[in-house]
Amino acid sequence: MALIVHKYGGTSMGSVERIQNVAKRVAKWMRAGHQVVVVPSAMSGETNRLLGLAKEINSQANPRELDQIASTGEQVSSGLLALALLKEGVDAISYAGWQVTIHTDSAFTKARIMGIDDQKILADLNAGRAVVVTGFQGVDPQGNITTLGRGGSDTSAVAMAAALKADECLIYTDVDGVYTTDPRVCEDARRLDRITFEEMLEMASLGSKVLQIRSVEFAGKYKVKTRVLSSLTDPLMPLDQEMKSGTLITFEEDSTMEAAVISGIAFARDEAKITVLGVPDRPGIAYQILGPVADANIDVDVIIQNQSVDGITDFTFTVPRADYQKAMDLLKNKVQSHIQAKEITGDPKVSKVSVVGVGMRSHVGVASKMFRTLSEEGINILMISTSEIKISVVLDEKYLELAVRALHKAFELDQQ
Amino acid sequence: MALIVHKYGGTSMGSVERIQNVAKRVAKWMRAGHQVVVVPSAMSGETNRLLGLAKEINSQANPRELDQIASTGEQVSSGLLALALLKEGVDAISYAGWQVTIHTDSAFTKARIMGIDDQKILADLNAGRAVVVTGFQGVDPQGNITTLGRGGSDTSAVAMAAALKADECLIYTDVDGVYTTDPRVCEDARRLDRITFEEMLEMASLGSKVLQIRSVEFAGKYKVKTRVLSSLTDPLMPLDQEMKSGTLITFEEDSTMEAAVISGIAFARDEAKITVLGVPDRPGIAYQILGPVADANIDVDVIIQNQSVDGITDFTFTVPRADYQKAMDLLKNKVQSHIQAKEITGDPKVSKVSVVGVGMRSHVGVASKMFRTLSEEGINILMISTSEIKISVVLDEKYLELAVRALHKAFELDQQ
Repeated sequence: MALIVHKYGGTSMGSVERIQNVAKRVAKWMRAGHQVVVVPSAMSGETNRLLGLAKEINSQANPRELDQIASTGEQVSSGLLALALLKEGVDAISYAGWQVTIHTDSAFTKARIMGIDDQKILADLNAGRAVVVTGFQGVDPQGNITTLGRGGSDTSAVAMAAALKADECLIYTDVDGVYTTDPRVCEDARRLDRITFEEMLEMASLGSKVLQIRSVEFAGKYKVKTRVLSSLTDPLMPLDQEMKSGTLITFEEDSTMEAAVISGIAFARDEAKITVLGVPDRPGIAYQILGPVADANIDVDVIIQNQSVDGITDFTFTVPRADYQKAMDLLKNKVQSHIQAKEITGDPKVSKVSVVGVGMRSHVGVASKMFRTLSEEGINILMISTSEIKISVVLDEKYLELAVRALHKAFELDQQ
Repeated sequence: MALIVHKYGGTSMGSVERIQNVAKRVAKWMRAGHQVVVVPSAMSGETNRLLGLAKEINSQANPRELDQIASTGEQVSSGLLALALLKEGVDAISYAGWQVTIHTDSAFTKARIMGIDDQKILADLNAGRAVVVTGFQGVDPQGNITTLGRGGSDTSAVAMAAALKADECLIYTDVDGVYTTDPRVCEDARRLDRITFEEMLEMASLGSKVLQIRSVEFAGKYKVKTRVLSSLTDPLMPLDQEMKSGTLITFEEDSTMEAAVISGIAFARDEAKITVLGVPDRPGIAYQILGPVADANIDVDVIIQNQSVDGITDFTFTVPRADYQKAMDLLKNKVQSHIQAKEITGDPKVSKVSVVGVGMRSHVGVASKMFRTLSEEGINILMISTSEIKISVVLDEKYLELAVRALHKAFELDQQ
């Protein structure tokens, strides 16, 4: 008997029939003698519908009230799933985050989980019940409902698995695992049976949207054995087969077989690039440029500062494309004269492509192979950024697909 | 400065525009210096949508899970109203029942309010905030969400007014008050400026659907000054005018003017009549017949037992038409042979018409006038039932409208 946490995304919970399929799958696990906690997302479209109503009423919506509103989507889907489980003959009960309790800080719309009480859930599990707990939300010390931000149900599930010391956390989604790259861009993309936590972290942060990055961080911090697998398979498929499907996130580099140098090609399409030209190269200048950008809640990603010439330097960074205009306005109106920059230029149509792999640590030549491949395709590299297990390049968006396919082939990711 | 509780029904909260109108109205009261607590229902249609999903998944839906699901409708509308108030420049905050706390028993889907904590709300009011509290729901001692049953938001509002010792509870709805009878049946129906609590109780219990009966009981028990008025008027209408509109429920018979003998004609259209013929007239026989009916959650209304002849009697009662077949099956299969009844007959198409008025206490002849009026119209009376302030008759449904109009005229309700 194992204690398993299941997480189902909005698509998997998207209709009465799909909820019934989730119940069939969970019932199968229960009948096999396992204890199961299920963390569902809201039915697909529901959170958007609720936030749409809120924005229609008040475009500057108060975040506390947004959380009161948005958190109901998971409460409904959790109740519906409990009903579907009862219909399947499985004893079941649903809880909202505040009923468990899932404790968070008070950062409305992007709260962090501080702790999870396990008593109620363990009592229910020991009484033979399937326990359904709303994803995406918790309650702050003052009793306000909080949400974890988009994709937060992944984090809820992994945190729940950590709190309960679950044997495994199964993230059921509409893809059947983590791929070497996005199959929609490269048809040779191959599903990985396993990926290390660090690689997954890079893949998630680089725009591979299989798992929310904070859930991966949580999995890493608490060593939660996490598997990404499909909710679209036959819910009654044999359990031993299901337990081997998808992609397992591991915590040690696999010593039983030759590790691949590169595990995958990640990319982020909708990036924008901003360059601040002719900046006096003095201490604190980076903060003076990026501080106001961060204060405006704009994520800054790749940052490059050139070698200064005669005490003057250029400063380039990327932001999400949706924030490009806001960032440009901010820099031109509030920062440029203040820091005596000569000019602010930008390009709203760039993308980022990264090769990721723990094997890179012990293999030289990954960077040169990457740059040579791109060069042979005539792709100009605009920016380069590296970490211990990834190399990212920023390039013109129009080259994105070409770059991904060329690198996928060059690193032989199409071969097992 | 007064402390006022506002309640808005589902129709009043039925769209973004209507929620904005509610906010405008509440803002007007706040700007006039009053403290306002608002209890909204779910947006119209939402509770039905949620319960429909639940029934689709599990027709024998577990009541605890139904409450988890159904309670979200008010949480959404409350959050949206708080956002609309903030947009109007009024500081506002919304609470779900469990956040206040509104304590109830554990009778899921039909819970009763046991108490309301006032600290949080009073603190917010004293800080100048409008406080929005979900209607229809609370939390039981084990931390489960409960709902009060259909129309429960009226009860939430009146209970809130009682707990806060509010100066007045304003029930905003899609009609502009309590009428002498249903204007759709009798075009001469006239709005009452005031009605006594006892009359309102009879009107509510007799099928006049303006206020949920439990809310009227609550208003009576705690002497909550309650006014039923329209939410469809101009939200910015002058406050003194609005404060005199609608119908006020009072607690003493008005001595300053001649009380009308009869205040109104109430009716319940969808009734059914069941007769158990040839029952041995022995102690406990009524319980043996009605016990199983009550156990099946069927409401029994008018009950008549004839004088027995030779130790044999007939027993007649009414049930809601929707429960007629269920009650008949139950009696024929499980009760008839047990009590040695000769026959069970019934009529699923009867209605009940009642004249209601505290003035009846001091005026003789109301009953005879009622029976004469019906007789003159050729309407056969099937059953009669009386209380101190009302007389009800059961008649064939086809005579309903005729009876209501004739009685309305006979008791001069069309005249001020």
